[in-house]
Amino acid sequence: MQVKAGPLLSKINYPADLKQYSESDLEQISQELRQYIIDVVSVNGGHFGASLGVVELTVALHYALNTPYDKLVWDVGHQAYGHKILTGRRDLFHTNRVYGGISGFPKISESEYDTFGVGHSSTSISAALGMAVASQLKGETNRQHVAVIGDGAMTAGLAFEGLNHAGIENSNVLVILNDNCMSIDPNVGALKEYLTSITISKSYNRFRDDISHVLAGLSKLGPNAHKYVKKIEKSIKGTLLKQSNLFEALNFRYFGPVDGHDVKRLAQVIKDLSAIPGPKLLHCVTVKGKGFALAEKDQTKWHAPGLFDKITGEIKKSIPDKPQPPKYQDVFGHTMVELAEANDKIVGITPAMPSGSSLNIMMKAMPKRAFDVGIAEQHAVTFSAGLAAQGLVPFCNIYSSFMQRAYDQVIHDVAIQKLNVVFCLDRAGLAGADGATHHGAYDIAYMRCVPNLIITSPMNEEELRNLMFTAQQENIGPFVIRYPRGNGVMPDWKRPFKALEIGKGRKICDGEDVALLTIGHVGNFAVEACTELNSEGFYPAHYDLRFVKPLDEQLLHEVFAKYKHVVTVEDGSLPGGIGSAVLEFMADHGYLANVIRLGIPDQFIEHGEQVELWAECGYDKNAITEAVRKVGVKRTTDSMAGYGKPLLPVLDGM
Amino acid sequence: MQVKAGPLLSKINYPADLKQYSESDLEQISQELRQYIIDVVSVNGGHFGASLGVVELTVALHYALNTPYDKLVWDVGHQAYGHKILTGRRDLFHTNRVYGGISGFPKISESEYDTFGVGHSSTSISAALGMAVASQLKGETNRQHVAVIGDGAMTAGLAFEGLNHAGIENSNVLVILNDNCMSIDPNVGALKEYLTSITISKSYNRFRDDISHVLAGLSKLGPNAHKYVKKIEKSIKGTLLKQSNLFEALNFRYFGPVDGHDVKRLAQVIKDLSAIPGPKLLHCVTVKGKGFALAEKDQTKWHAPGLFDKITGEIKKSIPDKPQPPKYQDVFGHTMVELAEANDKIVGITPAMPSGSSLNIMMKAMPKRAFDVGIAEQHAVTFSAGLAAQGLVPFCNIYSSFMQRAYDQVIHDVAIQKLNVVFCLDRAGLAGADGATHHGAYDIAYMRCVPNLIITSPMNEEELRNLMFTAQQENIGPFVIRYPRGNGVMPDWKRPFKALEIGKGRKICDGEDVALLTIGHVGNFAVEACTELNSEGFYPAHYDLRFVKPLDEQLLHEVFAKYKHVVTVEDGSLPGGIGSAVLEFMADHGYLANVIRLGIPDQFIEHGEQVELWAECGYDKNAITEAVRKVGVKRTTDSMAGYGKPLLPVLDGM
Repeated sequence: MQVKAGPLLSKINYPADLKQYSESDLEQISQELRQYIIDVVSVNGGHFGASLGVVELTVALHYALNTPYDKLVWDVGHQAYGHKILTGRRDLFHTNRVYGGISGFPKISESEYDTFGVGHSSTSISAALGMAVASQLKGETNRQHVAVIGDGAMTAGLAFEGLNHAGIENSNVLVILNDNCMSIDPNVGALKEYLTSITISKSYNRFRDDISHVLAGLSKLGPNAHKYVKKIEKSIKGTLLKQSNLFEALNFRYFGPVDGHDVKRLAQVIKDLSAIPGPKLLHCVTVKGKGFALAEKDQTKWHAPGLFDKITGEIKKSIPDKPQPPKYQDVFGHTMVELAEANDKIVGITPAMPSGSSLNIMMKAMPKRAFDVGIAEQHAVTFSAGLAAQGLVPFCNIYSSFMQRAYDQVIHDVAIQKLNVVFCLDRAGLAGADGATHHGAYDIAYMRCVPNLIITSPMNEEELRNLMFTAQQENIGPFVIRYPRGNGVMPDWKRPFKALEIGKGRKICDGEDVALLTIGHVGNFAVEACTELNSEGFYPAHYDLRFVKPLDEQLLHEVFAKYKHVVTVEDGSLPGGIGSAVLEFMADHGYLANVIRLGIPDQFIEHGEQVELWAECGYDKNAITEAVRKVGVKRTTDSMAGYGKPLLPVLDGM
Repeated sequence: MQVKAGPLLSKINYPADLKQYSESDLEQISQELRQYIIDVVSVNGGHFGASLGVVELTVALHYALNTPYDKLVWDVGHQAYGHKILTGRRDLFHTNRVYGGISGFPKISESEYDTFGVGHSSTSISAALGMAVASQLKGETNRQHVAVIGDGAMTAGLAFEGLNHAGIENSNVLVILNDNCMSIDPNVGALKEYLTSITISKSYNRFRDDISHVLAGLSKLGPNAHKYVKKIEKSIKGTLLKQSNLFEALNFRYFGPVDGHDVKRLAQVIKDLSAIPGPKLLHCVTVKGKGFALAEKDQTKWHAPGLFDKITGEIKKSIPDKPQPPKYQDVFGHTMVELAEANDKIVGITPAMPSGSSLNIMMKAMPKRAFDVGIAEQHAVTFSAGLAAQGLVPFCNIYSSFMQRAYDQVIHDVAIQKLNVVFCLDRAGLAGADGATHHGAYDIAYMRCVPNLIITSPMNEEELRNLMFTAQQENIGPFVIRYPRGNGVMPDWKRPFKALEIGKGRKICDGEDVALLTIGHVGNFAVEACTELNSEGFYPAHYDLRFVKPLDEQLLHEVFAKYKHVVTVEDGSLPGGIGSAVLEFMADHGYLANVIRLGIPDQFIEHGEQVELWAECGYDKNAITEAVRKVGVKRTTDSMAGYGKPLLPVLDGM
């Protein structure tokens, strides 16, 4: 839904228009920008708190800098809504994150003002440094390169690597540390405490000023005192000036902290800093959700609240007419507590996604045994390996697309050593509105090649529970469970645990001509497809593989012995996916069948609702139905009595 | 070859034996340990400088701690030779890195003293923290957990993530920073400069002492001066104590720097630190190669020098009787300079492997355009993406197994944005003596699923050069070139550049019954196999695919139209590899052939010479010959005139 912008903002299509205004207008422009974000997000949805927090910073940056000539990189781009609105996309902003609309993150292909695609966190310093070094090599020394990065994103190793390198390149990089003490959830870690201590105690610069002042006074006491003053100055100069701030230790010039909501002052400071060559850091303190009282108060809830009433702040929930199946996330969260109550070796780990993963349920119930390690996927995995090396059973929950950042740690620290770490890959498959950067499309392919891993995917809530139960058994080795974002299929999901046999799938129904082999939640699409197909006279068999690795060889021998046509269905990349694993089995055992693989094709998939994307990629119910129709043979109903009905009720899971 | 240990060392089988000696013996034990390492490595080869540098630290740690109850984690385990010798493996040490012998790195399965497998760098803090938190949960509060980490390894993001988390857990972690200013090559980055500044200027602790001393003197000057003293103290207390050291900023207690070659003092300090709870860091200054003059002087050369005369220091080189083909690494290095001279957009990037990758050739020839970013693979990739976003063409050279650490950056920062970054994956395939942690076994599988990537592998030096030439053309998009460690096959390799068509392989020879499809250097094994097979009456065809992605579909149509048996050969993991890609093509196009896949099986492969490992995995010349014999048909020589001869001379590459 399109909304109307305020009087000043409505005249700003690009930063050039913004620059026509005087400094004294910046505050009103900021207010209008904030209101516009509130107006649009309340009726269209999207990320909320992060962009509200940087409204003034956004206005100040585009006012003070010469974008797009100057390069502005927004870390974790969901803070960039204001930026999008000020750079040619105000009237498209209501299509944010909608199928076919603009992306929720900056994107090179969308605008020349979007210098770098940023969906995952902590890339901005490295990217801006690359741009700065390129400018230097090209002799464009007047170009500014700015990375805006939250204190949460600063804890990721990549950000530190970027700082460490930037500190020795004498290139034009300004890091703006947007310090709001929040990622999606409150930040954790020593760095956060450190930043708080700088902010609440005297600033470093003020300390230097103070000391100078005191020493000047002291000097006046006479030559004897003056001797001591010299000694103190020397000591401070020799040691402290180089060492007295974490960022200065890394050779950045540090400025701040400054109030991130004082737009005029910010514009001035950014202009001033542009004149200083080399690496510099501006520590800017902001409030996530600024200007919307409820969002300031409960920042996690208002990170991306969905639709809401912008006056009352009531979050709109569609009320279903019957009990809905739970989210896989909540099943994970509650099951963690249940399992951990029975097995005191179990611990839980999340890198900064306690609410998204629902590990917060365990963090609340047993705070000593559940760890939020901050945005630090690599550490999350190696830390888990350390825990497992001492006999504990860590459940390390990482979104599938973020696990890409800890791939080496999975191989090097867990798989080689056969440690009993359970990886719960949340958001596996197409994740929805966050788009290409956030789809968990590759995990089957990149995990399947790693020796020693057991890789599974549950078709429903009960299977998720039973896989978690299976994974925590003694000496079972590294265990991967991938499941999608969103709801499962079993309203009545809380059933007694049952250990599953490793490498055993299950037959859902017998059939003729065609066998459907599915992995994970998409098995439910196949069940729906079978119902429709049966009514048309097609009777495909359906098997839920359950294990990506080890494959159920007995099941596959049965399938290839009987069926000429095999359709594999997965919520993952076709190259290297489960279909590919089935082909490997077929080749290795000398079977010759027609294998049709449905899954995510070899291209990046944009944002949209999951159902829209499943259809686009061709592995929803309709696509499965279509595939079977093409190769199957229509039968009379009589000849097929007994087929087409699940051998076991699907909702019973096992 | 077995060598004799000194009189004290020969009585030490385990740390318990070491503890029988008095503190005054530690120096001699250290000398004997150092000599033993020199004696063995000079005749058996292996890493050298790193272990010499930590001899005293190793002795002190096992003397002061209660290993294996106390947990000792050696970062990048090639510094752990002394540790191995003192923990039950003295008499096996001559089998170090040899096929079937002990591993060059600590390894859980080898000894209970090896608490964690460490081949890749910067994992130790996270692992030790995991162990420490586990001990805490288990109530074993007297257990020590020590990570020994070099300053080079400290630049990797993972180490920072570990520090950031350890700083808020009140668990028993001691990080020993082994500061020798070196990785394999000299360290780079702001952190290194910072550590040097601490070391050469006054230490932080000494500064605090000094200031106290000065202030005490000043106080005596009377009440007026005393007033100022109070002000200064307050300022220092409020700000500096929390902020005056990078590690203290992260909530570690910092101690040092101490002389890492004073074994008695070290033992004492480590004992003292054991009594202090919570996270602490001991900054220990050592010399890499300590005690072997040449190794101290040229630390890069002596990182792993091969065999040498321990008296003269002469490094032994086997002198070949005819000109040898060059290493792929050197072809890469020289070609970089050639290409960069002609194209000023080209820049080179390596994460801490200038000599290993041979990028040092370019770093010397054009220092402003070649960057060693330190051990920081993630940053290397995102920094490259930033450079490419500004129109440059970065060649980012990363060992295949280390690229696992930058996987997300390849997808998120390069592939999605289709940036023209050229990834040179060195050490692809089985890397040899470094073993399981260092084999580049998975890159085909984990890269092949990523959209937008062009993935290639040269069969020889000329093809490497031409792929590099092809990759640097305008707007070609992300380009991967994987090649193995070691020598190619073309003594006369420096030929004029030629652009290759994207997605085009080549036919090496026509044949009957069986087609060999190879990718990369293993194509040469197939050429040898064909020669042997021809002499027996088998005439397989041979195609060099050259492109993993996009596959040469025309070539594959030709193959599947003609041959019933297809043998794929790759120096990479079978699950998800090129064989799997060929199967996908076959299924998608409705071909039915018998496909035999040769490559690295689904298990971790230990260390050994490359030829030993190729044989073990079954894709060397003999294995290929065997595979063809099984399915091929013997022909008379007459009927096969014209077959079995390469259509193009193989050494001509193209």
